[in-house]
Amino acid sequence: MAEKKTEKISKKTVKKERRVEPTLPGGFRDYGPAEAIARAQMLQTIRATFENFGFDPMETSSVQRKDVLFGGEKESEKIIFDVKGSREKKSDTALRFDLTVPFARFMAANPEIPKPFKRYQIGTVWRGESPQAGRYREFMQADIDIIGSSSINADAEVIAVIYQTLKNLGIDDFVIKINNRKIFQAFPKIGEFEKERLWEYLRILDKKDKIGVAGVDAETKKVFGKKTSDLMRQFFDFKKDEKNIIQLRVGDVVTQEATRELSEIKENLELLGINNKYYEFDISVVRGLGYYTGTIFETILTKIAEIGSIFSGGRYDNLVSEFTGQNIPAVGASIGIDRLFAAQEKLGLIKKQQTVTKVLVLNLLPELASDYLQIAKQLRDATINTSFYLGDDTSFQAQLSYAVKKEISFVVIYGDEEKKKGVVAVKNLSTREQKEIKREELAAFFKK
Amino acid sequence: MAEKKTEKISKKTVKKERRVEPTLPGGFRDYGPAEAIARAQMLQTIRATFENFGFDPMETSSVQRKDVLFGGEKESEKIIFDVKGSREKKSDTALRFDLTVPFARFMAANPEIPKPFKRYQIGTVWRGESPQAGRYREFMQADIDIIGSSSINADAEVIAVIYQTLKNLGIDDFVIKINNRKIFQAFPKIGEFEKERLWEYLRILDKKDKIGVAGVDAETKKVFGKKTSDLMRQFFDFKKDEKNIIQLRVGDVVTQEATRELSEIKENLELLGINNKYYEFDISVVRGLGYYTGTIFETILTKIAEIGSIFSGGRYDNLVSEFTGQNIPAVGASIGIDRLFAAQEKLGLIKKQQTVTKVLVLNLLPELASDYLQIAKQLRDATINTSFYLGDDTSFQAQLSYAVKKEISFVVIYGDEEKKKGVVAVKNLSTREQKEIKREELAAFFKK
Repeated sequence: MAEKKTEKISKKTVKKERRVEPTLPGGFRDYGPAEAIARAQMLQTIRATFENFGFDPMETSSVQRKDVLFGGEKESEKIIFDVKGSREKKSDTALRFDLTVPFARFMAANPEIPKPFKRYQIGTVWRGESPQAGRYREFMQADIDIIGSSSINADAEVIAVIYQTLKNLGIDDFVIKINNRKIFQAFPKIGEFEKERLWEYLRILDKKDKIGVAGVDAETKKVFGKKTSDLMRQFFDFKKDEKNIIQLRVGDVVTQEATRELSEIKENLELLGINNKYYEFDISVVRGLGYYTGTIFETILTKIAEIGSIFSGGRYDNLVSEFTGQNIPAVGASIGIDRLFAAQEKLGLIKKQQTVTKVLVLNLLPELASDYLQIAKQLRDATINTSFYLGDDTSFQAQLSYAVKKEISFVVIYGDEEKKKGVVAVKNLSTREQKEIKREELAAFFKK
Repeated sequence: MAEKKTEKISKKTVKKERRVEPTLPGGFRDYGPAEAIARAQMLQTIRATFENFGFDPMETSSVQRKDVLFGGEKESEKIIFDVKGSREKKSDTALRFDLTVPFARFMAANPEIPKPFKRYQIGTVWRGESPQAGRYREFMQADIDIIGSSSINADAEVIAVIYQTLKNLGIDDFVIKINNRKIFQAFPKIGEFEKERLWEYLRILDKKDKIGVAGVDAETKKVFGKKTSDLMRQFFDFKKDEKNIIQLRVGDVVTQEATRELSEIKENLELLGINNKYYEFDISVVRGLGYYTGTIFETILTKIAEIGSIFSGGRYDNLVSEFTGQNIPAVGASIGIDRLFAAQEKLGLIKKQQTVTKVLVLNLLPELASDYLQIAKQLRDATINTSFYLGDDTSFQAQLSYAVKKEISFVVIYGDEEKKKGVVAVKNLSTREQKEIKREELAAFFKK
């Protein structure tokens, strides 16, 4: 069948002289079927794991008031995307840059929700950073949060979910680095610098992944002097020996609380049967975001540590109070889906398939059209994903080669001869085998 | 366990004097767990149906260049949301207002994709209209499209997918109204007005759902005169009689093509076993969007017709050519997920549940903490969605009432006595029945 000439009946559809360039803005991208199929499978595993641990889904609006977004994190002002209706003069709304701040807003606006409340959300977030190689401005996050529990069991549970999610995704080479921000209270004493300068120091330490240990030492020396640099180095050098953390009693009551909390997490993870090769305590972990108050953690894929943390979070007991004035304890974690997906690809854990369609029914003879549709219906009714060839090329070879290109596993061939015999020929495109199946047994054949 | 007092260690987390109002911008909303769970189930049914018919998933970027969006549909300029990085001076990007235009861009940019290409996408779109009661500015669409097929089988397949999707969602009272834009060519002849005024007339006809048949008549009379109004009314009055459409030979070659296409669709739908009570031909259906070129359809829920079409689409053979200059035939349809969800709620087809968690393990005695974690692990390992109580209240009553409020079906009770006997008490919160189960048989009990 040749392509039909379609007369234009609408003024609007009259072809324009000037064509539009089919490009995307910098920092944005599409996912074709192969990526979308693999991502959907990955998200399904994540969703099932979250639900398995008692987390329920919810969805927040992707557009938020700017004061809500900035309330959560002042720094975010730099990375935000303004959103403005085309008829509005100015914008007081923006796209969410994470899922945590909109969730805290939701909790503040809905105080009646029974707590502890465990929710997950998988959604898109946007950051208005300048697009760079490999840096995207739109990406997906999968978050879990437990609101209304100050129990350290909640911190441990979030870490257990991280562990189980990665295991369920087939990832084995990872380590969850755990720290507690309260430990930082001891740093001025250990490094012999003024308490007021703690965040100045932490900002240097937080750069460790970018500038390395030597870089942190050098910058500490420059800003705080050689003595502080040496003392802190000495302190961190025993970080590998976990006992030293547990016995860290250099600080005050708060530091002791931190070490007790870390011990409790360890007990919990042991009870949950998590091998201690999958986590370690690392007192040099800072986590950039300002809102954390206690336990913090990040997850490194040990074979490709350079990509940075793929699953991180911590306790943030003060975020909801931005809205309510009332502290509501909270702990959560977030996966960077795109980064994790890229990592999975690098690790060879993504099987790419072009299609979820299992069978293509070839459209060979126009007079058999009704049979083709009935065969397709028979298969679909048996929940077998089935396509009927809708192209213009009636030749067997062209349709077969289409199926091969699309990576569809089976084609159903049905012509006059098959019709006479009451059978259908099924060709397996991987093995190249061809079989005759009784027409009424076709669905059963694929069901096996 | 009393809530712990957390010392603030970060300057950034010090509580502010001025609180932020936890409100959403007008026209936006959140979905709590009950809605999110029901929506997720609905989307899963939709996804499965689309895949069953051989459609593959893909994802386009939610931010697009404005010239790309306007290329698809000039009218959209009014309803667009501008997007601007906070450091950028001006914006040449906007949020997508549908999924079709970004998809056409994708097809133009990726000409190597084997065709026919059948894809589905479920995603959020935004429209910068002034927010009104019940009018939202962010909503979800589920689209299917077949690109690269001019066969009328493709049009019929899209309609069959609509039918099957609604049936799979448990909806039975619906009718798919089918028309073909080429028929409009005959309208000037039928109504005795100038060909050039066709779109002027169609814009009036398109308002039928809003202003009613009488309104269309009145406006036609006002703008085109009584004769045209009478002639068109006479013409539409036999629309219920399907044969009249099929025999509609008043027009030229193009109109005949349209009636032939409608007949072919009918044959196809019959072969696919779709009862003709689920569809009708309605030559007064216009569909607002400019890009349709042939078959068009919309779907009305007959019990709540006032909410408008919930699943609509048509053939748009010229859209990709905006980018490539080359016509690529295409046909597709789109569900308004939020409208459909609201309709399902109205029809009583949504079972709201607060949680997907099946079991809550109570946390009654601190010394049994390790048992509780192991019981939770046992259930989770058996893929039973299980929560461990993480609240501060240690009393049995408080934890039970939490489970009831959360609508969790079962609680697991384990104390000294149960431990001695090697059993676990399981309370069914709907029947109020309580049973003792051997601890090692607990997962098996819930699996039944």
